[in-house]
Amino acid sequence: MIFLDQRRLPDEEVELRCTSSAEVAEAIRTLAVRGAPSIGVAAAYGYALAADRGEDLDEAYALLADSRPTAINLVWALEQMRSDPSPEHARRLHEEEVSRCKRMSAHAVELFAPGTRALTHCNAGGLATSGYGSALGALRAAWEHGLLAHVLVDETRPLLQGARLTAWELETLGIPHAVIADSAAAHLMVLGEVDCIVTGADRIAANGDSANKIGTYGLAIAAAYHRIPLYVVAPTSTIDFETPTGAAIPIEERPGAEVTTRFAARNPAFDVTPAALIAAIVTEEGVHRSPFAESLPRAVRSR
Amino acid sequence: MIFLDQRRLPDEEVELRCTSSAEVAEAIRTLAVRGAPSIGVAAAYGYALAADRGEDLDEAYALLADSRPTAINLVWALEQMRSDPSPEHARRLHEEEVSRCKRMSAHAVELFAPGTRALTHCNAGGLATSGYGSALGALRAAWEHGLLAHVLVDETRPLLQGARLTAWELETLGIPHAVIADSAAAHLMVLGEVDCIVTGADRIAANGDSANKIGTYGLAIAAAYHRIPLYVVAPTSTIDFETPTGAAIPIEERPGAEVTTRFAARNPAFDVTPAALIAAIVTEEGVHRSPFAESLPRAVRSR
Repeated sequence: MIFLDQRRLPDEEVELRCTSSAEVAEAIRTLAVRGAPSIGVAAAYGYALAADRGEDLDEAYALLADSRPTAINLVWALEQMRSDPSPEHARRLHEEEVSRCKRMSAHAVELFAPGTRALTHCNAGGLATSGYGSALGALRAAWEHGLLAHVLVDETRPLLQGARLTAWELETLGIPHAVIADSAAAHLMVLGEVDCIVTGADRIAANGDSANKIGTYGLAIAAAYHRIPLYVVAPTSTIDFETPTGAAIPIEERPGAEVTTRFAARNPAFDVTPAALIAAIVTEEGVHRSPFAESLPRAVRSR
Repeated sequence: MIFLDQRRLPDEEVELRCTSSAEVAEAIRTLAVRGAPSIGVAAAYGYALAADRGEDLDEAYALLADSRPTAINLVWALEQMRSDPSPEHARRLHEEEVSRCKRMSAHAVELFAPGTRALTHCNAGGLATSGYGSALGALRAAWEHGLLAHVLVDETRPLLQGARLTAWELETLGIPHAVIADSAAAHLMVLGEVDCIVTGADRIAANGDSANKIGTYGLAIAAAYHRIPLYVVAPTSTIDFETPTGAAIPIEERPGAEVTTRFAARNPAFDVTPAALIAAIVTEEGVHRSPFAESLPRAVRSR
């Protein structure tokens, strides 16, 4: 399988070719492919590759499932693939994920008033979702409906997914944007320059608590302080009904060297935004409001 | 005058020599010398240099005062120098600033319980204050009293004063520390790893609203949400009684290229933390509590 190496963007558009499930797992672990829906799709193709090559499928499953701990889409996609590990099935899952993104983006449009200035964190765009984008898909749809004026992009340290990937996608889409240091968000909120915050999610617990890129939680607290709504946009494959609350979501701690190679460092890659700070969760099934413990199961049952 | 070029730290310890007030102003503007008390001291020496060289003193004053807009110490030091622009006077102001830092650090010790794990933002250490440090001086004194267990250091994007300067100073002092992405602070607060937040200030308004490095405001909101106290440690030369509230403090907008050279960017260099989110302001005169509009004038009158 071949995909765009996200580590090299925006400077270079380089393709990465994986010829085994181990190579796919390594690409996921090192963030060559990243974003919860995208790593689910990549794992599905990796599993199909393993089947095609006659690899031990239990080993391939474990290797791919363990490549990153927080996003549930990885396990979700592998579970789907167990019954039919064919490349056609992986492609079908991929197409379904793209279709889910388009449907959730259409639902999200109702959240935008004309002239909205949004703020987003990390990258939940086409790169992260193997297609149209979740959070960025919502912004894209709002832009196409003439409702979006501007997007502030958190640069998203330490790996700069915002400054490298989201800004690149917004530029491609022709949507006005400005990159900011993550820590500038609260200041721009108090200046009145932010109407809403839109992010993706890596795992949504049954009660609506949502894990996402480190920094989302601090944004959510600041947004609540300024009475600015925070919207989480993610496919239902991101919801984990087996995880009752955010406290049970494993948080990946990545190498400190991603922050600094000169001094000791801590590098938690995700945090959990409690449901109480989320104005709405948007999936392909619609716009869901609190209490999420009731609205999320209804969304999934309605499929 | 000669000082350590803070732009090159921690990789290189390079001295920068300035031979005119214009060169001092340029060193301040480009952050070769930075930190509110330090730029006050640098401006004092720059003004003495101008007098010594027979430069137009009104021009030198304007050049130095305009080199950065937010820190009030700059104007404060220049006002002091007007009556006596001698090098001896500049040196005396310098020594007084070091003495103020030591006294405020001694006062701050009362805020620390044994085993405190503190979090700090930007650099308010010896580099920032031409001597002992304000926020970092307080941490240093707490460490010497056996009260400090660990310091989390916000890396402080975009210019990484935390990851470059504060970590370097803590390493030199032998104080255990870990650098984090700025956006990881709220997550570490909810995990219970932060007992207090200690920062410096660039300007404190009469009501206690405090301007400091961009990101301090977001930290303060998150700290309040977790009921963690935020302490501002700064010499009385940082208090501006002419500025009634934070709304009147000019916020420097620096070049977007400090954030990213590839896309459009916004780069406000400071934000304002409202007095309501500050547990105490510590100056060389003591620990001051809300209402600051009463406690701060009392502090200055007591000198």
